[in-house]
Amino acid sequence: MQDKYAQVKLISKPENMLKTIYTACRTCYSADSPLNIYECDSAQDNEKMLKLISKVVSSGHYSTIEHIQVSFAISNISRACSHQLVRHRHMSFSQKSQRYVKEKGQFDYLTPDTIDANPELKAKFDEFMSKVSEFYLELTQNGIPAEDARSVLPNAASTSMVASLNLRELIHLANLRLCTRAQKEIRILVKRMCDALISEEPWLKDYLVPKCERFGFCDEDKSCGRMPVKGN
Amino acid sequence: MQDKYAQVKLISKPENMLKTIYTACRTCYSADSPLNIYECDSAQDNEKMLKLISKVVSSGHYSTIEHIQVSFAISNISRACSHQLVRHRHMSFSQKSQRYVKEKGQFDYLTPDTIDANPELKAKFDEFMSKVSEFYLELTQNGIPAEDARSVLPNAASTSMVASLNLRELIHLANLRLCTRAQKEIRILVKRMCDALISEEPWLKDYLVPKCERFGFCDEDKSCGRMPVKGN
Amino acid sequence: MQDKYAQVKLISKPENMLKTIYTACRTCYSADSPLNIYECDSAQDNEKMLKLISKVVSSGHYSTIEHIQVSFAISNISRACSHQLVRHRHMSFSQKSQRYVKEKGQFDYLTPDTIDANPELKAKFDEFMSKVSEFYLELTQNGIPAEDARSVLPNAASTSMVASLNLRELIHLANLRLCTRAQKEIRILVKRMCDALISEEPWLKDYLVPKCERFGFCDEDKSCGRMPVKGN
Amino acid sequence: MQDKYAQVKLISKPENMLKTIYTACRTCYSADSPLNIYECDSAQDNEKMLKLISKVVSSGHYSTIEHIQVSFAISNISRACSHQLVRHRHMSFSQKSQRYVKEKGQFDYLTPDTIDANPELKAKFDEFMSKVSEFYLELTQNGIPAEDARSVLPNAASTSMVASLNLRELIHLANLRLCTRAQKEIRILVKRMCDALISEEPWLKDYLVPKCERFGFCDEDKSCGRMPVKGN
Repeated sequence: MQDKYAQVKLISKPENMLKTIYTACRTCYSADSPLNIYECDSAQDNEKMLKLISKVVSSGHYSTIEHIQVSFAISNISRACSHQLVRHRHMSFSQKSQRYVKEKGQFDYLTPDTIDANPELKAKFDEFMSKVSEFYLELTQNGIPAEDARSVLPNAASTSMVASLNLRELIHLANLRLCTRAQKEIRILVKRMCDALISEEPWLKDYLVPKCERFGFCDEDKSCGRMPVKGN
Repeated sequence: MQDKYAQVKLISKPENMLKTIYTACRTCYSADSPLNIYECDSAQDNEKMLKLISKVVSSGHYSTIEHIQVSFAISNISRACSHQLVRHRHMSFSQKSQRYVKEKGQFDYLTPDTIDANPELKAKFDEFMSKVSEFYLELTQNGIPAEDARSVLPNAASTSMVASLNLRELIHLANLRLCTRAQKEIRILVKRMCDALISEEPWLKDYLVPKCERFGFCDEDKSCGRMPVKGN
Repeated sequence: MQDKYAQVKLISKPENMLKTIYTACRTCYSADSPLNIYECDSAQDNEKMLKLISKVVSSGHYSTIEHIQVSFAISNISRACSHQLVRHRHMSFSQKSQRYVKEKGQFDYLTPDTIDANPELKAKFDEFMSKVSEFYLELTQNGIPAEDARSVLPNAASTSMVASLNLRELIHLANLRLCTRAQKEIRILVKRMCDALISEEPWLKDYLVPKCERFGFCDEDKSCGRMPVKGN
Repeated sequence: MQDKYAQVKLISKPENMLKTIYTACRTCYSADSPLNIYECDSAQDNEKMLKLISKVVSSGHYSTIEHIQVSFAISNISRACSHQLVRHRHMSFSQKSQRYVKEKGQFDYLTPDTIDANPELKAKFDEFMSKVSEFYLELTQNGIPAEDARSVLPNAASTSMVASLNLRELIHLANLRLCTRAQKEIRILVKRMCDALISEEPWLKDYLVPKCERFGFCDEDKSCGRMPVKGN
């Protein structure tokens, strides 16, 4: 069953993910050509490839995993959440446009948990959203173009996008956005992006973690207490 | 007098802008060291420097102007506009946070021209914004944190930011966002950024133009007619 | 038969290239979710997808093709050529290291055509390279580490790498490096990268061209005459 | 007295460095506009500004220091060293071209310390360099263009450049290249870039350090022993 949070589907990843990373790692340190490395016996043996890749990535040499880019179809996130996501400048985005896509009826929106938990506020929230929708429709029916009528649409309004990023940026994204200091909605979104990939590439599990697990300490001003604070 | 659109102030630019670009241009083609070039006679002569710089930039060799980065203080733009601006991934942004800054009374907002032009809709728009503000305050007074209460804030709500970019990216930004296909609010914002810089560095005037002026044709699907359409 | 220039093999590209771009293009303009678009009937029909993609890309909206990244195994290029290639900062590289890979005998090298064409100079060039090799080996045999011994290796020395880039950057690379102003070796390298991809994705043919074909004019200071010079 | 290593001069930095960062930091968390923050009393008080900036940067929120870009004139580095430096893709470079600048006599070059320390090898190294120079001149005198004659020039040959980067990237560069695993020449170059800036902006001293000082551990496969190895 679909819950209220982000729907995420991994729609594209490279053929030969491991072989490509393995070839990249070995090219740096080998007298052999990348073509030969790509076709050698070791490059047919997942276990051997994973052993080398783990060693390289654990040493922080992330450039070798930039060769792998993955794409996600994302829907059911709020514009508040997408505004946070698009600040990651190493990612590529194609987002549903509020300029070019006119809402025809009640727009979709996401209710934050703190409001969901309060039935009275939740009822007012839903009523508010239907009032917004009515005013939006009144504006467009009076000739206001969608790009201007959207002025009244709230941060809660849903959006959807195709988002792509390489594995180095995905690790960075996980490091920042799986931290409990990140807002809940984007934390769930990024968790689902990671899980979708981990289910096909389980070896990535150790790297797609909050930054405190990577560093062994927390460097945030206010810590959640999961890891010791830096300098203490 | 301040109008309703973006307030823009150029708050930082490098010392020695022309000398730095001039030194960069000549370093590529000279047997001399950049330190000597920087201190040579020509680097004291604005006219000579500008002549060389114009020749290099007109040939599309923009890497030499990446050495110059400028910073703008921007306020009075809508969140709709900032969402467009932050998609420029070569820029650096520090934006007012709706998670950490709680609105205390009526939030500021920007009314689109098409609504401003219709007194009846305009009155409804203002009334709507005051209703949104009331509901936002009700939410925060009932213990909903700002990061969740902002769900109800509209795209029209104002934001402010410090934004920095190098001259190559500024030319790109101008090429795209001074085009009549861009939305009016961002067109005005980018125009003001360009004007603020041109008033101190007039030689940049020829480069901070819509892309059709740079290319001599329009490549948009729907053209405004200012320039011939590509392929016609 | 292998000639003296770059060996290039396309070793990785995404599954579902067209479907991913198509989904990205339509997501911007559609009320439908990217998941539904991805699974809809049109996304099974190459011809329909290509028609939309061509329209979007021809309008210069290149962000939709950033979702596709491809990887090449490259060998048999000179360090002079790789020094030019790695200046493309949107690409990802894993290059054979001269610090960590010690040459054991005569290193491979690339002879420029202008020298190849002159038998007397060519003989001297080969003799020179064998002298360099001898001195390199003398240095390493006397305990000089590879990272210092490589000081004597020439720009002609061969290197190899895995290089990845998205389609937007590949178009940019082609625009610049297929220009006759680019040096012959990198022109051939980039041509082979483009051809390797075009043989699997023929629709890209129209975009992987020198910049003069894209713009309809030449903006270089010295033009080869193939296209009219800008402003003339 | 000039030693054999990199000559570095800081040729450009923004006016108002501290005020710009301070304004950026406070804009994120303040109801006030960046223009007012920029002109407020605190923004005239270096000590207050530094206190806030230190808190923000120590928490790893580096985006606020991207607003500051600095430019260096660099000469007297080997092409081996520049090849390493240009791999930093967030930097901007204008490098002396071996295609367009023809050597007229003995080219400058850098002798590695391990060779300098061995008088016999050092003598052979110098003799080798003069042979290379002779052959280069023979090639160019026989009509071989500079872009092809440079094939024989070694990694030791000197180059010069103008290089620019923002403070976030400078911290990253220091983290990687001040590590003892980096090659000596680039370690000295980056140290001199940092020192040139620290002499004008002493507050940056704590951040321009090798990564082990930032993280409190070493994540390299082979550690120099200065800090405990991660996981041990």
